[in-house]
Amino acid sequence: MPKISEKGHSMPESPIRKLVPFAEEAVRKGRKIYQLNIGQPDIKTPQVALDAVKNNNIEVLAYSHSAGFEDYRKKLAEYYRQKDIPVDSNNIIITTGGSEALLFAMGTIADAGDEIIIPEPFYANYNGFATASGVKIVPVESTIETNFALPPIQEFEKLITPKTKAILICNPGNPTGYLYTKEEIQQLSAMVLKHDIFLVADEVYREFTYDGAEHHSIMSLPELKEHAIMIDSVSKRYSMCGARIGCLVSSNKEVMQTAMKFAQARLSPPTFEQIASEAALQTPQSYFDEVIEEYTSRRNILVNGLEAIEGVRVATPKGAFYCIAELPVENADDFARWLLEEFQHNNETVMVAPAAGFYSTPNTGLNQVRIAYVLKKEDLERAVEILKFALKEYNK
Amino acid sequence: MPKISEKGHSMPESPIRKLVPFAEEAVRKGRKIYQLNIGQPDIKTPQVALDAVKNNNIEVLAYSHSAGFEDYRKKLAEYYRQKDIPVDSNNIIITTGGSEALLFAMGTIADAGDEIIIPEPFYANYNGFATASGVKIVPVESTIETNFALPPIQEFEKLITPKTKAILICNPGNPTGYLYTKEEIQQLSAMVLKHDIFLVADEVYREFTYDGAEHHSIMSLPELKEHAIMIDSVSKRYSMCGARIGCLVSSNKEVMQTAMKFAQARLSPPTFEQIASEAALQTPQSYFDEVIEEYTSRRNILVNGLEAIEGVRVATPKGAFYCIAELPVENADDFARWLLEEFQHNNETVMVAPAAGFYSTPNTGLNQVRIAYVLKKEDLERAVEILKFALKEYNK
Ligand SMILES: Cc1ncc(COP(=O)(O)O)c(C=O)c1O
Ligand SMILES: Cc1ncc(COP(=O)(O)O)c(C=O)c1O
Repeated sequence: MPKISEKGHSMPESPIRKLVPFAEEAVRKGRKIYQLNIGQPDIKTPQVALDAVKNNNIEVLAYSHSAGFEDYRKKLAEYYRQKDIPVDSNNIIITTGGSEALLFAMGTIADAGDEIIIPEPFYANYNGFATASGVKIVPVESTIETNFALPPIQEFEKLITPKTKAILICNPGNPTGYLYTKEEIQQLSAMVLKHDIFLVADEVYREFTYDGAEHHSIMSLPELKEHAIMIDSVSKRYSMCGARIGCLVSSNKEVMQTAMKFAQARLSPPTFEQIASEAALQTPQSYFDEVIEEYTSRRNILVNGLEAIEGVRVATPKGAFYCIAELPVENADDFARWLLEEFQHNNETVMVAPAAGFYSTPNTGLNQVRIAYVLKKEDLERAVEILKFALKEYNK
Repeated sequence: MPKISEKGHSMPESPIRKLVPFAEEAVRKGRKIYQLNIGQPDIKTPQVALDAVKNNNIEVLAYSHSAGFEDYRKKLAEYYRQKDIPVDSNNIIITTGGSEALLFAMGTIADAGDEIIIPEPFYANYNGFATASGVKIVPVESTIETNFALPPIQEFEKLITPKTKAILICNPGNPTGYLYTKEEIQQLSAMVLKHDIFLVADEVYREFTYDGAEHHSIMSLPELKEHAIMIDSVSKRYSMCGARIGCLVSSNKEVMQTAMKFAQARLSPPTFEQIASEAALQTPQSYFDEVIEEYTSRRNILVNGLEAIEGVRVATPKGAFYCIAELPVENADDFARWLLEEFQHNNETVMVAPAAGFYSTPNTGLNQVRIAYVLKKEDLERAVEILKFALKEYNK
């Protein structure tokens, strides 16, 4: 038998997929599962985006420009300028999801063996892109005690070596829901400038901030002109995960030229979804207002509900649609599996994502789970109730 | 300034894009350019595929399964079985273009520093995927004298080292148009089995074979069960390049499990284009018959036209829609640029792809160009005429 690569062996499996077989088995047994484990919103995609695809006049579905439609990039730049992100179309490469933008960013700035420092817990697929690129992720721990705020800058500095090429943050955070303050972004900026390394910010949840809190993009800091690389996506913003449209944004010309070579090798991003994404830019503000209102109430239901359960501690999310909860269990992995395999309340159960998979340091976050609040309010209420019963029974 | 990666520096630029600025300048001067340089067919996409997208009922454009729609994979497997490729849906991962399938294949079977042997000239973007993956491409030369047939097996064997993980072929070939015979596929098969390495075949032009010649897929050889990885795409088959839908196909379970981890990291392929691709499977045979007839006449016009020009030698293509032509010039790069910058005939000129970019060995194929016959017959006739005049003037 020919051999699989080392890289292939060490490619991590997604922590939210590991439980899927158990969930499938539970469904076969006729059980209803409340899925708190995935980041797939149930929110409707803006009609204007769906209509644009239905009304397309394409006869030959041709490759687009490798950087994406010029028109789309121009309008997107305008959109960013309204968000205090001063870019033009040349600073944008349209990618196949934020996922591909992350892959291009890593390839552009890091070689095999190079290091990227990331506050943990972090979006688990960063591991996959790093493994595919041969890049080493160096975690710096953020803790539930501080709501997963930015770890002290000296903690980063302790980890910086000649191999460190970048700091990568996710803002607002998946899985933490943490929204970095202006001061935190400024501290990060000073650090990357001091060490002359890149600051990569995954801002795919930019629009999802609550309680009137403001999002601070790394792209808004003029001093980061050569050092900032932003990752973005339409997946969450417009509930268009299936579009697979994202972008890489930077004012550093060399970064753009290099990322462009990666983009050209894979030819172009998908055409219909670029049409949808371009049209989505016309989505009225009222759509976002409603969505934010909806997520705010969901978050409140979830956080209040969880906090009312004995032994549960929650980091209150200020953004995105996830939160990390610490449970009164030793091993959340076992508990999550037990929920699917053994537990039921009126033939219903819940599926949560064990948080250990979001930490890079072994044996960290073992008693934590990530909960996504992408369900309707009634469903969330019921899911929290089930969780309460389950914890009681589990700890008997 | 923070530093770009070595990888980024060595990412090759696409040989067909290098001339674009000169072409743009020529267009600004009001010149008409016949584009013989790109593989973007002008053939209409099947209506059934376009209609399926227009008639979609999606309200939430959600992530699909990371391996692609189950339904689509089932139907695709059926399609392959009709082509004597005995697979089922578990042997298929839907990817974002054949491009992504190539990237997944390389990541699955090779680590940084590992080697993949490829007959040259080859599809230039293999270089990009190899660079992104840290893999080294080892070329084995095929020549215009043999129409770019498979080089003798001992030429491959000379290059096999412990680092060699696979042989990669493109069948039918881009840029050569060569279609491997059954015997050649069998020879390759014996070799990879002997050395226990993978045989990867890029079969994205499978449907484009001429003069009644038959395509022989590596997937049809039962002895290659554990060793064969096929790359495919809807881009050319249905003139759906903008769909960005392809697939990786293998009967090796470990390969599939590993490639799946790469697929999960990037979440899913685009949804609308999967709908289009699934519907495209209903394309009637008459569509292909017409397309093949059209390409056959185009090829004949091109090859006959080129052969009638003094000093030009052409490798007659049996498949795909490219051919390599040797021109009576020293440096086809200079000539291609001159065509855009200096030459015109009735204010028209042609754009060709210098073939050196398709060779990995330096200073090879310097007097060759790749010509794609993706233009209408009249346009091809005129393009060949222009080329004739141009060569005459260039060599004065
Ligand atoms: C933090 C973060 N970044 C990037 C992505 C990738 O999203 P996509 O590739 O759909 O744009 C996700 C998806 O869940 C995410 O949570
Ligand atoms: C030989 C070959 N392989 C793969 C591809 C990639 O095609 P796609 O990513 O559009 O499926 C192409 C495109 O031109 C090609 O010529």
